[in-house]
Amino acid sequence: MKVLVLNVGSSSVKFELIETSLDAIDNQTEKKLGRGLIEKIGMTTATVKFKSPDKPDHISMPPIWDHQSAIKQVMKLLTDPETGVINDISEIDAVGHRIVHGGEYFSNSVLIDAEVAAKIRDCFELAPLHNPHNLKGYDIMQEVLPDVPHAAVFDTSFHQSMPKHAFLYALPYSVYQRHKVRRYGFHGTSHRFMTYSLESRLVNRSRADFKVITVHLGNGCSVAAVDGGRSIDTSMGFTPLEGLIMGTRCGDLDPAVVLYMMAKEEISLHEMNTLMNKFSGLLGLSGTSSDVRELIEEMGNGNERALLALQAFSYRVRKYIGSYHAALGGTDYICFAGGIGENSPIIREMVLDGMEKLGIKLDKEKNNNLTGDGEITTDDSPVQVYVVATDEELVIARDTVRCIAGIVKH
Amino acid sequence: MKVLVLNVGSSSVKFELIETSLDAIDNQTEKKLGRGLIEKIGMTTATVKFKSPDKPDHISMPPIWDHQSAIKQVMKLLTDPETGVINDISEIDAVGHRIVHGGEYFSNSVLIDAEVAAKIRDCFELAPLHNPHNLKGYDIMQEVLPDVPHAAVFDTSFHQSMPKHAFLYALPYSVYQRHKVRRYGFHGTSHRFMTYSLESRLVNRSRADFKVITVHLGNGCSVAAVDGGRSIDTSMGFTPLEGLIMGTRCGDLDPAVVLYMMAKEEISLHEMNTLMNKFSGLLGLSGTSSDVRELIEEMGNGNERALLALQAFSYRVRKYIGSYHAALGGTDYICFAGGIGENSPIIREMVLDGMEKLGIKLDKEKNNNLTGDGEITTDDSPVQVYVVATDEELVIARDTVRCIAGIVKH
Repeated sequence: MKVLVLNVGSSSVKFELIETSLDAIDNQTEKKLGRGLIEKIGMTTATVKFKSPDKPDHISMPPIWDHQSAIKQVMKLLTDPETGVINDISEIDAVGHRIVHGGEYFSNSVLIDAEVAAKIRDCFELAPLHNPHNLKGYDIMQEVLPDVPHAAVFDTSFHQSMPKHAFLYALPYSVYQRHKVRRYGFHGTSHRFMTYSLESRLVNRSRADFKVITVHLGNGCSVAAVDGGRSIDTSMGFTPLEGLIMGTRCGDLDPAVVLYMMAKEEISLHEMNTLMNKFSGLLGLSGTSSDVRELIEEMGNGNERALLALQAFSYRVRKYIGSYHAALGGTDYICFAGGIGENSPIIREMVLDGMEKLGIKLDKEKNNNLTGDGEITTDDSPVQVYVVATDEELVIARDTVRCIAGIVKH
Repeated sequence: MKVLVLNVGSSSVKFELIETSLDAIDNQTEKKLGRGLIEKIGMTTATVKFKSPDKPDHISMPPIWDHQSAIKQVMKLLTDPETGVINDISEIDAVGHRIVHGGEYFSNSVLIDAEVAAKIRDCFELAPLHNPHNLKGYDIMQEVLPDVPHAAVFDTSFHQSMPKHAFLYALPYSVYQRHKVRRYGFHGTSHRFMTYSLESRLVNRSRADFKVITVHLGNGCSVAAVDGGRSIDTSMGFTPLEGLIMGTRCGDLDPAVVLYMMAKEEISLHEMNTLMNKFSGLLGLSGTSSDVRELIEEMGNGNERALLALQAFSYRVRKYIGSYHAALGGTDYICFAGGIGENSPIIREMVLDGMEKLGIKLDKEKNNNLTGDGEITTDDSPVQVYVVATDEELVIARDTVRCIAGIVKH
């Protein structure tokens, strides 16, 4: 069946059409028919990109005033005789929606009905920048394709298996009961993809039998501790701000600093939020860039602040790996993914170098020469480290197929 | 020489008179002459306690209206024919002052002069609840004993050796430059005491040659990673709120939660500060007590929230041990101290159990039967774990002697 995967943000729509089935999942023979991105919705600079294997790349700048016209554009791109990959939208058999926050309602992907939609709406407060747009995507698509199943795949659901002592903050218990404040964790689809890739392709062992620390380093960054296929801890928390240092997000911080800065600079809640989310992280430390590639280049040119930013970034990842190594009582594998995790051997080396005593023996040659997925530790390394090209759209398509088949796969 | 150790808080004065010298330090033959505590200064319930080896314990409730009268009381207790341990205050050769915050000014203890006092004053802003009282203690004592040397021993100085990538938060760099916001760390005297105790008594190796994770679990709780006798990281940060779960402090928290709670409950900076410092931690999670002993008892009676609080507490310590194990590239030792660290084998077991794969093999029998200082791991444990009765007053007395002798000992 052809599944349309949809990721609707505040001013963007990302989409991919994937031909898949239960058999194709098992044999990993899915076909990726085409994928695209519509950015800057509502602006005069709105841009449309579309890519499919056998056709020339499409890029255009038609007027895209709202999500409605963006989704119309998606349908047009998919069916257009020149760029398109299907003849008619009736060929789309199902839609898989990326939904950021499932709260404590969802520990698995589900088919969306009125009740599910209401629960997604109930989580607006927990993800005000994401869930409303995600759900709007569903509302619009449901009008376009009312007769096909729509599935919701959550960023949070994979981490719902965390035990209470790991997901609770040490605040008054009533804060959890009244305001749902707890660690939720995000990037669930990527952490799952890594776990499944180890199981099915890289180590060929049932995930029930191994422990892995999954490290997603991209625009956002997070680490998860996965035991027997279940997430038992993760670095992002109530929001995606906590944990690792990211491009523009600060990650972990003495909570007293938030209060100190607000008093000191006389800034509002909103401004403090912006400071921590948009002007911190690699950008804040380096003062020049939020992009690891640029910082590596500047580091090479002797820029000390770029070096400092990358050292702090890598050091935090290293500490989380140590932390989850202890939480798991010793991990079997570590797996890197995401733009930085997949493409930056320097960062992987900065994270892993000198960890032999913890059973991690990096093979620098393998690490530097790796293309695609693979292992980067020595043959006798007690803990094996892998790199995997993550594919969140594929996870969403697979889950959509499984939901339709009634197979709950955590 | 006789050194008076003084720890002056907002409403309390803790003091101890210790007979010591460079030789006594080397041979660990210091004599503790007497120690006392004055609490609830300024209240009608002000209480005075004093204890010395050869005399009956003293407890009384004289009027103590301010720090001045509290210190008069200290002098009286020390010289009183009935309770006292010296005949005249002229027998006091030096005073060692506990000063909480030394900012980036002090990486060692120092003799106090006008310049040092000005720097301590400069750090008021960083420790508004402590430094002003600490310095007031010096001002008063300086009038009482103007002709003896006074030394300042800081909670922060031991951690000044942290590298920049460990002490900086990933906020805009200007926040560090303009507001001195960075990780400072506290409990330095205790982390040093543990390191020195390993060197001089327990493992008999120069501290330059080993790595240790020091775990201070008391009213406040913190962990440090010590490499070659130098702190390279620690869990408390800009303030003592960060890091481990404590009696009433939350420790680590998604910084976005601070903003969310303030908006949600419409509370002020001050109230949020109180919530995180006074109503969180073990008290907040359990809903009943901030005291580990009480919670262990309640856990035994089947109280699930007490169990949850202790699990979360121990789990956080375990994760920090893992984190610093990685930061150090593998530790040689772990050392516990503080009221909980020294006296709670159950907590130590909850922290360390199941860490064999990380080289930590707890010997449960040793752990349960330990009295005083000692080792609690099996003979073949690659990482050895020790328990040490910490003595911050002794560190202050020793540093005072060293400062007088002109020996800077980090």
